[in-house]
Amino acid sequence: MAEPILFYFDFLSPYGYLGSIEVERMAARLGRQVEWRPVLLGVTVLKVMGLKALPDTPLKKDYVAHDLERCARLMRIPFNRPDAPMQPLAAMRAYTWLAGQDAALAKRFGQAVYRTHWAEATDMSSPLAVAKVAAALGVDPAALLEAIGSAPVKQTLHQAVEAAIAAGVFGVPSFVVGGEMFWGADRLPMVERWIETGGW
Amino acid sequence: MAEPILFYFDFLSPYGYLGSIEVERMAARLGRQVEWRPVLLGVTVLKVMGLKALPDTPLKKDYVAHDLERCARLMRIPFNRPDAPMQPLAAMRAYTWLAGQDAALAKRFGQAVYRTHWAEATDMSSPLAVAKVAAALGVDPAALLEAIGSAPVKQTLHQAVEAAIAAGVFGVPSFVVGGEMFWGADRLPMVERWIETGGW
Repeated sequence: MAEPILFYFDFLSPYGYLGSIEVERMAARLGRQVEWRPVLLGVTVLKVMGLKALPDTPLKKDYVAHDLERCARLMRIPFNRPDAPMQPLAAMRAYTWLAGQDAALAKRFGQAVYRTHWAEATDMSSPLAVAKVAAALGVDPAALLEAIGSAPVKQTLHQAVEAAIAAGVFGVPSFVVGGEMFWGADRLPMVERWIETGGW
Repeated sequence: MAEPILFYFDFLSPYGYLGSIEVERMAARLGRQVEWRPVLLGVTVLKVMGLKALPDTPLKKDYVAHDLERCARLMRIPFNRPDAPMQPLAAMRAYTWLAGQDAALAKRFGQAVYRTHWAEATDMSSPLAVAKVAAALGVDPAALLEAIGSAPVKQTLHQAVEAAIAAGVFGVPSFVVGGEMFWGADRLPMVERWIETGGW
């Protein structure tokens, strides 16, 4: 069986949302699996790289706002977001907890978080919003809320972020195939070409 | 006659070098002209956006070093660069001076600067290196050296950078067609699709 395509994500990134849908479409065409791996831009971009968050970056934030709409139309992906930036920690911890039990369920949860925030414009920053989305997938909301605040889950996510950084990941979405990393939803055609040709 | 494709460039960017070749190939396929417009990342990225230069940015600088080689191989573009980052001001002023006299000559000069620095690994930071490349195109090197230091040329470049910023340009290469801006050499397939379809 061919190795999975690694998909590094942080729910706060709208390009990650677009990438989460496009990479699964691509994987289905190629007969591959996609393995989701969490990373936190609050660590990579702000702390390790020492850059500003996109909403605080003149010029680029305006370009990105326009470009996201354009990319979503091209990809035929619904796109409608809340006004405020997303605080992703509760959802990222919930994903981490679920992934430790059931990877398929964790991915369905991740897709539901993305869709609820970035297509339905319902803010997914709060633990209660996260628990509600998980409950619709059959997850016990009380157990999820307890897990979000637990030290082991925080530690597991922390280790995942450290591992991502050690692998060179800095932005999302990032994709890895055959040890090659590609950054950006707009690089997926290049990823597909890499898989089909075996690289160049 | 169809409107030209705008190509915003700063010689210091290796992605701009790749884009300068790819955009001309694309324009030839589409029967369009490419109009080169200078911008300075030292103004947009460092001053206006308040970000760091790429060589000072952990993780991303390593990714970009690898990705540039990979993109150059895919595009079949020679890529071999000096060790030190380029200081583009002399070459950007020389371009500005030439563009005021002969746009076609200025573009040939720009292509020679890119090739010399990014394919032949000969640093193009110094006025003397710039004058040498211009001299090979029939430009009087003494006149060029005088122009590089002149107030009117500095002012013209300054105004061009201000106009680029007013148009929303922040990174290079950026391309504009029909009022739509696209950032990144890897977006050229999307630019081509935009031109062919009239947008979406």
